[in-house]
Amino acid sequence: MSDPDVDSSDPDVGASDSDVDSPDPDVLVLRQKLHGQDGADYAAILRERLPDRNIVHPATPDEQREYLRTARVATGFELDRDQLAAAENLELFAGVYAGTGHLDLEAFEDHGVAVTNASGVHVPNISEHVIGSLIAHARQFPRAWDNKQRGAWQTHPVLELQGSTVAIVGLGAIGTGIARRLDAFGVETLGVRYTPEKGGPTDEVYGFDDVHAAVAAADHVVLACPLTETTAGLVDAELLTSMPTHGILVNIARGGVVETDALLEALRHDEIRAAALDVTDPEPLPNDHPLWDLDNVTITAHNAGNTPNYFDRCAEILAGNVERLASGAELENRVV
Amino acid sequence: MSDPDVDSSDPDVGASDSDVDSPDPDVLVLRQKLHGQDGADYAAILRERLPDRNIVHPATPDEQREYLRTARVATGFELDRDQLAAAENLELFAGVYAGTGHLDLEAFEDHGVAVTNASGVHVPNISEHVIGSLIAHARQFPRAWDNKQRGAWQTHPVLELQGSTVAIVGLGAIGTGIARRLDAFGVETLGVRYTPEKGGPTDEVYGFDDVHAAVAAADHVVLACPLTETTAGLVDAELLTSMPTHGILVNIARGGVVETDALLEALRHDEIRAAALDVTDPEPLPNDHPLWDLDNVTITAHNAGNTPNYFDRCAEILAGNVERLASGAELENRVV
Repeated sequence: MSDPDVDSSDPDVGASDSDVDSPDPDVLVLRQKLHGQDGADYAAILRERLPDRNIVHPATPDEQREYLRTARVATGFELDRDQLAAAENLELFAGVYAGTGHLDLEAFEDHGVAVTNASGVHVPNISEHVIGSLIAHARQFPRAWDNKQRGAWQTHPVLELQGSTVAIVGLGAIGTGIARRLDAFGVETLGVRYTPEKGGPTDEVYGFDDVHAAVAAADHVVLACPLTETTAGLVDAELLTSMPTHGILVNIARGGVVETDALLEALRHDEIRAAALDVTDPEPLPNDHPLWDLDNVTITAHNAGNTPNYFDRCAEILAGNVERLASGAELENRVV
Repeated sequence: MSDPDVDSSDPDVGASDSDVDSPDPDVLVLRQKLHGQDGADYAAILRERLPDRNIVHPATPDEQREYLRTARVATGFELDRDQLAAAENLELFAGVYAGTGHLDLEAFEDHGVAVTNASGVHVPNISEHVIGSLIAHARQFPRAWDNKQRGAWQTHPVLELQGSTVAIVGLGAIGTGIARRLDAFGVETLGVRYTPEKGGPTDEVYGFDDVHAAVAAADHVVLACPLTETTAGLVDAELLTSMPTHGILVNIARGGVVETDALLEALRHDEIRAAALDVTDPEPLPNDHPLWDLDNVTITAHNAGNTPNYFDRCAEILAGNVERLASGAELENRVV
């Protein structure tokens, strides 16, 4: 802490009294910006939840390197092997993404550093995005927006969600959140999961072997599964043929779950009603990609995960785990 | 029935065997088109529900006049004094609108004709429209739609409904349907109604005297009330000032509940986040009206009432009332 950069240049450090008493940070909030929020916001929320802990947030890359040497807990997007090697006191890396596919989990294991993810933080916002997207395409909101651009007062036909059936592919926390909200609309739900014998939050549960039957029995399809060998390219020309022509496809999973060319053909020929794509393959979608031109598709640039409460929910998981780390209890959302 | 036009020109008449046996129609489905459906569709649904009744639908104005002379029940938009005077056998007029403000109820009373409305038929579709509109503005779907026109892959900040509070002005069937669905999103609801002592489906209930307090305690406001002396111009500059700047206003009531110029000013100066207008004053909104130009408003041309199931739900009410008429039981949705 003799480095003047560390002591004086970061308002977060100066703002924390406990920082003076305990030079080794309890929690290092790595430099990050997410959904329009700064790491400093995340640090401020953590300080409220853990007033007796030393929470630091570096203003510069140099400060971050310094803090990382002694921190017991770090939270952010990722740490690579070099950073891990330098983080001698690190016991826990709390990832702020729901997934950990981007992390070198072996390196964490090698260094004896526990890893947690932020699974569950996306449930409210993605559920809202999905139901909003289903209603928008059922009620043709994009067509109303086009009418508005022209100042045209004109009605148009709609679908109703009540009495329809929605197939949800993937029954994790997000799929469950979607099913619960759809229930209030009088919508029947079918789930598709790896282990249908586990049951689930939907009215019926199918295995991936029966995905065609599930999709054919449904009006609309929501993709809420991880990208795996089973789900890569799952929505191909055949599955789109199994969907009814009035069906809406919502993808908040990963672009690779859908074969883009097959979807493009289906949308071009009205083989399904519409698609709401939060993720695409490729991603970002190039400016000249033909998907942009179709009026039966909406694209939201991987924004379904966006919520003003993201760091609040990350902090809730992490604050609990900091206490659990001290008491030796089992960590929540632990991956390594 | 000696008029050849009546016997031969209407496929609906020819299709009904019972028509031959009972020349006096039990139910006359008046000439009408609603939400992209024909009166003939309505008649077909009624025949399924009432297979033993003679359901007729005239192909021409002359046929309608002829049928009206002898029909016991007529269903449609309206009947005027002249039509009523000619409808000698008429016992019930089943209006297909939720409201009856457009009807000369005194004339029906004078002729001893009961009147029912279609109250309740709009609950699923308008509830879906309202929640879709709240999510669309919370998550800035119109901005994503604009990005799509330009082929721009870009995220943007959002609001979350979960944890927010929505004030619902008007706690009839529609307000109740909205409150029930919002509950599944973890949204608190406040209701505003004439008789707050009756309680209601919302977490709290306010009287119209306390509408400023209700709106100030809420994040978003949904107008679902009839247009009355109390509600005309209710949303004026003062009430818009009471709303928070992040608040979304949804109007599925009547255009006159909102002072258009005050709303325009509030939207122009970001005094509220957005407005979703299904109804406007004036209506239709003229092509050169400045509301069309604002990017924080959506306009849906009085289309929230649109549902493919409209005549299904009208037929459900009417089929029950035809039986009740026969048995002398109390009619459902009776107004006169």
